[in-house]
Amino acid sequence: MLACKCHTMRVLVIHGPNLNLLGNREPDIYGTQTLSDVNDLIAACAADLGIDVRCEQYNGEGQIVDVLHAARQQYDAIVINPAAYAHYSIAIADAIAAIGIPVVEVHLSNVAAREEFRRASVTARACRGSIGGFGAAGYSLALRALKELLER
Amino acid sequence: MLACKCHTMRVLVIHGPNLNLLGNREPDIYGTQTLSDVNDLIAACAADLGIDVRCEQYNGEGQIVDVLHAARQQYDAIVINPAAYAHYSIAIADAIAAIGIPVVEVHLSNVAAREEFRRASVTARACRGSIGGFGAAGYSLALRALKELLER
Amino acid sequence: MLACKCHTMRVLVIHGPNLNLLGNREPDIYGTQTLSDVNDLIAACAADLGIDVRCEQYNGEGQIVDVLHAARQQYDAIVINPAAYAHYSIAIADAIAAIGIPVVEVHLSNVAAREEFRRASVTARACRGSIGGFGAAGYSLALRALKELLER
Amino acid sequence: MLACKCHTMRVLVIHGPNLNLLGNREPDIYGTQTLSDVNDLIAACAADLGIDVRCEQYNGEGQIVDVLHAARQQYDAIVINPAAYAHYSIAIADAIAAIGIPVVEVHLSNVAAREEFRRASVTARACRGSIGGFGAAGYSLALRALKELLER
Amino acid sequence: MLACKCHTMRVLVIHGPNLNLLGNREPDIYGTQTLSDVNDLIAACAADLGIDVRCEQYNGEGQIVDVLHAARQQYDAIVINPAAYAHYSIAIADAIAAIGIPVVEVHLSNVAAREEFRRASVTARACRGSIGGFGAAGYSLALRALKELLER
Amino acid sequence: MLACKCHTMRVLVIHGPNLNLLGNREPDIYGTQTLSDVNDLIAACAADLGIDVRCEQYNGEGQIVDVLHAARQQYDAIVINPAAYAHYSIAIADAIAAIGIPVVEVHLSNVAAREEFRRASVTARACRGSIGGFGAAGYSLALRALKELLER
Amino acid sequence: MLACKCHTMRVLVIHGPNLNLLGNREPDIYGTQTLSDVNDLIAACAADLGIDVRCEQYNGEGQIVDVLHAARQQYDAIVINPAAYAHYSIAIADAIAAIGIPVVEVHLSNVAAREEFRRASVTARACRGSIGGFGAAGYSLALRALKELLER
Amino acid sequence: MLACKCHTMRVLVIHGPNLNLLGNREPDIYGTQTLSDVNDLIAACAADLGIDVRCEQYNGEGQIVDVLHAARQQYDAIVINPAAYAHYSIAIADAIAAIGIPVVEVHLSNVAAREEFRRASVTARACRGSIGGFGAAGYSLALRALKELLER
Amino acid sequence: MLACKCHTMRVLVIHGPNLNLLGNREPDIYGTQTLSDVNDLIAACAADLGIDVRCEQYNGEGQIVDVLHAARQQYDAIVINPAAYAHYSIAIADAIAAIGIPVVEVHLSNVAAREEFRRASVTARACRGSIGGFGAAGYSLALRALKELLER
Amino acid sequence: MLACKCHTMRVLVIHGPNLNLLGNREPDIYGTQTLSDVNDLIAACAADLGIDVRCEQYNGEGQIVDVLHAARQQYDAIVINPAAYAHYSIAIADAIAAIGIPVVEVHLSNVAAREEFRRASVTARACRGSIGGFGAAGYSLALRALKELLER
Amino acid sequence: MLACKCHTMRVLVIHGPNLNLLGNREPDIYGTQTLSDVNDLIAACAADLGIDVRCEQYNGEGQIVDVLHAARQQYDAIVINPAAYAHYSIAIADAIAAIGIPVVEVHLSNVAAREEFRRASVTARACRGSIGGFGAAGYSLALRALKELLER
Amino acid sequence: MLACKCHTMRVLVIHGPNLNLLGNREPDIYGTQTLSDVNDLIAACAADLGIDVRCEQYNGEGQIVDVLHAARQQYDAIVINPAAYAHYSIAIADAIAAIGIPVVEVHLSNVAAREEFRRASVTARACRGSIGGFGAAGYSLALRALKELLER
Repeated sequence: MLACKCHTMRVLVIHGPNLNLLGNREPDIYGTQTLSDVNDLIAACAADLGIDVRCEQYNGEGQIVDVLHAARQQYDAIVINPAAYAHYSIAIADAIAAIGIPVVEVHLSNVAAREEFRRASVTARACRGSIGGFGAAGYSLALRALKELLER
Repeated sequence: MLACKCHTMRVLVIHGPNLNLLGNREPDIYGTQTLSDVNDLIAACAADLGIDVRCEQYNGEGQIVDVLHAARQQYDAIVINPAAYAHYSIAIADAIAAIGIPVVEVHLSNVAAREEFRRASVTARACRGSIGGFGAAGYSLALRALKELLER
Repeated sequence: MLACKCHTMRVLVIHGPNLNLLGNREPDIYGTQTLSDVNDLIAACAADLGIDVRCEQYNGEGQIVDVLHAARQQYDAIVINPAAYAHYSIAIADAIAAIGIPVVEVHLSNVAAREEFRRASVTARACRGSIGGFGAAGYSLALRALKELLER
Repeated sequence: MLACKCHTMRVLVIHGPNLNLLGNREPDIYGTQTLSDVNDLIAACAADLGIDVRCEQYNGEGQIVDVLHAARQQYDAIVINPAAYAHYSIAIADAIAAIGIPVVEVHLSNVAAREEFRRASVTARACRGSIGGFGAAGYSLALRALKELLER
Repeated sequence: MLACKCHTMRVLVIHGPNLNLLGNREPDIYGTQTLSDVNDLIAACAADLGIDVRCEQYNGEGQIVDVLHAARQQYDAIVINPAAYAHYSIAIADAIAAIGIPVVEVHLSNVAAREEFRRASVTARACRGSIGGFGAAGYSLALRALKELLER
Repeated sequence: MLACKCHTMRVLVIHGPNLNLLGNREPDIYGTQTLSDVNDLIAACAADLGIDVRCEQYNGEGQIVDVLHAARQQYDAIVINPAAYAHYSIAIADAIAAIGIPVVEVHLSNVAAREEFRRASVTARACRGSIGGFGAAGYSLALRALKELLER
Repeated sequence: MLACKCHTMRVLVIHGPNLNLLGNREPDIYGTQTLSDVNDLIAACAADLGIDVRCEQYNGEGQIVDVLHAARQQYDAIVINPAAYAHYSIAIADAIAAIGIPVVEVHLSNVAAREEFRRASVTARACRGSIGGFGAAGYSLALRALKELLER
Repeated sequence: MLACKCHTMRVLVIHGPNLNLLGNREPDIYGTQTLSDVNDLIAACAADLGIDVRCEQYNGEGQIVDVLHAARQQYDAIVINPAAYAHYSIAIADAIAAIGIPVVEVHLSNVAAREEFRRASVTARACRGSIGGFGAAGYSLALRALKELLER
Repeated sequence: MLACKCHTMRVLVIHGPNLNLLGNREPDIYGTQTLSDVNDLIAACAADLGIDVRCEQYNGEGQIVDVLHAARQQYDAIVINPAAYAHYSIAIADAIAAIGIPVVEVHLSNVAAREEFRRASVTARACRGSIGGFGAAGYSLALRALKELLER
Repeated sequence: MLACKCHTMRVLVIHGPNLNLLGNREPDIYGTQTLSDVNDLIAACAADLGIDVRCEQYNGEGQIVDVLHAARQQYDAIVINPAAYAHYSIAIADAIAAIGIPVVEVHLSNVAAREEFRRASVTARACRGSIGGFGAAGYSLALRALKELLER
Repeated sequence: MLACKCHTMRVLVIHGPNLNLLGNREPDIYGTQTLSDVNDLIAACAADLGIDVRCEQYNGEGQIVDVLHAARQQYDAIVINPAAYAHYSIAIADAIAAIGIPVVEVHLSNVAAREEFRRASVTARACRGSIGGFGAAGYSLALRALKELLER
Repeated sequence: MLACKCHTMRVLVIHGPNLNLLGNREPDIYGTQTLSDVNDLIAACAADLGIDVRCEQYNGEGQIVDVLHAARQQYDAIVINPAAYAHYSIAIADAIAAIGIPVVEVHLSNVAAREEFRRASVTARACRGSIGGFGAAGYSLALRALKELLER
């Protein structure tokens, strides 16, 4: 919990399954920005906040578990948009609980207002907090939230 | 959706039931800051962002409905922590849906990690988005989210 | 049950939470008439039927309980649109059961065709009957129903 | 929705299963009027309102679907008391949705106050509105509701 | 309830849907006797007990409601095997409740030991009693039970 | 399944918990006959049918399991009224399944028409058949059913 | 299972309730073809495949049970679109199970993507297979499937 | 938990919604005593036990939350009959948990024996204990229980 | 209900399964008093109130049914702590309903605040009232409640 | 939706987890054909229909998401047998919804007749249609269905 | 937890209801070994491991509670096969939790693969661990597990 | 089932997701041993029992399916700790069912005593048996169980 303040804070942003299609996929729900646009916004916000950020996208549940494990040595915190996996991946939830560093969950859309099966998030239970409904801006909010958490 | 940019953005922050006891009430869940401390943080953040903010606290469901109704003429947006009402007040959810201006839901704790009956939020369905688990910092994040939404 | 026929029948119409915004709020569901328009229609129909009618609107659950209690000395019957409270207010249901005079529930929209959580009405259990789906005309039908019930 | 006003409005009243036994069957729930008494009341009310009305009773689910289909060419609207079928006949609900002319559901008793399995109505979802708890008077209210709907 | 003892007791046996295929249909569950064999056994038992019995088979729900209605003037009691309708026909259950004469439900197989959806019987709620699991012998037991009920 | 026909058929009747209070306990549900009256009726019917019968009553779940075990060497069949245990005793259901000889379940009242929690019978799944709603006469019907089953 | 190959394969197509309104009824879900258009397509496809086909439409549950029973002597296989009955008619499901000849279920729309109560099919359990979401083309696919099944 | 023993113990009794109608409302469930009668009994018992007691009645959920908050500075303990709110007011439950002083829940009737929706109490979870089914005497028992708890 | 006042009131206290281990078993939930300590407190309170009391402890469900049956001739009332059996023993609930004399249920802990499966009490439905959360003092409160009930 | 008709239609067939063991795995459910046999049948049918087809098999959920994404540039349509993933992979369902080209779901067995947890398909919601119960022939039917869809 | 190592470890094996019929009862599920055979295997394994073992079998829930209580003074650990009681006996679960010494649950069959109601074990919650599916060998595994636990 | 005894028995141990973090992850639940420590214990036990063992760890669901498939040619049996996948991976359950060789499920913790969603195991249904609650010792018990199963 006590982030070393002598180095620049490092944050890994993990985009979950299907987010690589952002901008093409159901734009009425997910907007018209591509993932590359979103990553540019994240990079700009991170630069503003003096955070080293890296963005990755994975479609595989096991890959995301692997990446979370590897991250705990290399990053101070994680922002994750588990997308569909939020609703059933106990494996990712267990990985988040296991790695010890703070993790914040982001959803582009307001999941509370969508299909019944999207309302519960099993991964959010293991996270510090969650942010949903603000599109790409949610990632910037998550970076700020982590900055505050770790520098407090 | 098109906020008038010629005036300073005005936001009403509504704290729901029992939040007046903040700092005394179950500090392991809700922290040791009092509501007055939280409001000072909100005011400071609002000043930073050039937002006119006003904070109010209510224990009554009907009062919150009244305040939401009145707000739609006087504010550009609302930040609400419905506390217990998040889990059953369809009346507040209907009021949020009815007033048209954007509303963001904030929870101090990570409700996804608490008792079963706190996991679903009926009010969040009617909001633009929601933020939970970051303590008082959640309100600042909500102000930023609204600034972005309205000035986009 | 035996209404005194020597005086003009007196009916209280109680509009529940958010109905004061009628005409502005989600017009595709609730229509474009304002509450004032609706009350004019009710007054006209009451005049036709020779009924003394009074219309009030409340957002607070406790207020509605108070008004129901007070009404039992001053009115022969009640028409109530409990709006959101229909779906969870056992307190209002208990008040309806407690006051003894006949109460009819009205809904503007056809709740059977809306969201799952709007399908059950806990207040309707305590009422004599219910009418839904006819917009403002539902209140006139309720007045007629009560006239028939009390003058039978 | 635009009823031709140059002819007298024609309404078909469909009584569902077991209603032919009205007056004999469980009089504490359904009253002592026979179906013939009820039809006389309906005829009187229709005469008052200047409506051409016809009343029919069927015990078969398929028969009711057939009658609904045939009605859409011959009637301007339908009043249906689906009785037991209200609670499970998706076939009748589909027929109501299919025929396009307005249908109003009537129940003699206040189904909200009866057995759990009588609380949900699958047919009401497809209707314009529903009326329950007023005994035979419910049919008159339904005729008035349809008159208002069609002549608006 | 007070059966006239001056005439021979008359009982109608109603076989529900698909029972006409008895002997061909899934013999491991329903046995190899045909419906005609079963009716012969019923007739023999009725003769033994001095009961006038008549056996009919119907596949239609509405038909069974019609037959139940007609029976209340012509029979002292009814034995019914509602087959599939036992599990969802509220219309038949209402008809049984409406006609006033005693009705006994019979099932060939032990429904408690079959598929989940065959365990509940909505028609049995309206009957005097039920008998299941004894194959065709269940009808004889039902006749004896009715004889005892009516001659007591 | 092949009962030895050279000896008189022996049947054990097991009355479950609280049946010893029969005649005193809630007579509107269970009638005014005492258990001794019921046993006399059973004895008379058994004599008629040429069956050796023995009636026992137990309040303990384990006792009933013990008695069922012992019975399989000494009796050809069992009639059991498990009373309250019908609704939750998997131990008794397992015992019935284990002992191999035919068991018939009897209920005095029509459990399908009583409280929700009395509608399911876990013990009936393991029995050959069940009979309910005929009061003490249900035991006689069960003896006849067993006679038919074993002498077939 | 062993279809006689010396004669032309005969298939009965049964259209369930409300399908006679096809083309008029909710065209966004069911398309604009009439039932007669659909039957022409079926006939054309059957001719192609060398199948004798007959198409019938019924709104009554009992009628469909009757037709299924009659069919087992006259047809080699059945294609059924049970429409609304798919979701609750255990009687039709039992009839399909009872007649022994292969039955294929067809739905015009993709029921998996519609209302919750349309997702489960009790009749499909008793069928050989099911096809949904392809509009009228589903019937042709079903004929091909049956041809393959029976001529294998 | 350590009540100051140098002053007389002060207890606030809060009567929830509809209890002001006591004596009139459904006397078969709630008895014929009025709230004033009940308060006299409470006062007498308090005098006996050397407790300073004050009784208040509120219909509003928010009011009860306000009163609970105010009470924690002025009273040593609270007796609450939340009436209908027991079953859904998480706001009152949160207030009870927040104020720290001991709270005992009282119900006049035995809620375990009433409607299904009255069986669970969300407020009781936050209380020290609960007492139900003894009518007005329940309040005296609660005062005794609190005296024992605080003077132990 | 009319207790004979010419003799000292006799009450049986029944402690259910595992209560013999009181003081050893999970002291954070059940306290450190042994059952013998509790019985001494009960005896002292009974002496104070002029009640003849007898305390017994049983681990067997059938034993408790037997003891309840026997008690109805020898005691005026019963206090029962059914412990685990409260949550599933319909047999004990039936025995309480059957014996006619008043029974009060006591729980040491506040079951509303414990595991989900301990929240419902099937035995409390059959009791006059229930008291929970006050440790051993609950028994004294129960004795007082019974004294008031029987001497009223 | 408008498939280019100037080139041969290209379809990707995706076999989900465990289908590589086809022929060995539980042959009573899945038949004795190997996956290679199935692919030969698909190839033959595709040749017949003038379709370019490619068959692939994957055990990984993330792999199937990747393949679906890649396919949308290279294929006109997809046939998928998601096997076990049909019942819980929201990630695959989201991928199907995201890629825009038509997808048809195929199951070898009739899932409606298997274990409860196999009855719902979350992936079918996102598909155009589904076909189940016809073994390997289901793939040919799916190719035909797609041909019709795209060339219409 | 700290087992005295100066004496031979003593373990009580408790066989629950119906296990005395082992070898006769449903051999396809439970195998053909008798309980005596199983006890011989347990004795042999115990001898191997240098454990003093005693095996007992009980059909009564209360008896098993009694035996568990008595065991905590005389044994270092317990192996229990609660059979049917595993699925509903909160009393036995409470006894296991109360006695403090380690308890291991054994099932002969793989309960996860049997009827739905056998999948949950309320007693396993209170045990250290559980072993199922290995027939009589499960007891030997349990003895080894306990040896390791206590000698660690 | 008949393992070839001429070669040393070969067993594959599969550790599921997040088990590579063992010793670091939530040590109060999973202990302080690392996966390498656990594998040493497994190797030692295997040596003792004369078993060739190989241990592998995977985070990916599809990987585990692949490994299970490959194993059926190279191993005589499998020990699997599916970790999080136990609760939802029907794909792994299907793979276990498909490969034919015996598989035993091991859990480090006693899942019956943890969160609700960890109580059901979909993979255990397809296994021979399961062992939970004994930490690393569970793997040794599983090896012994398999030895017994295969050499029997």
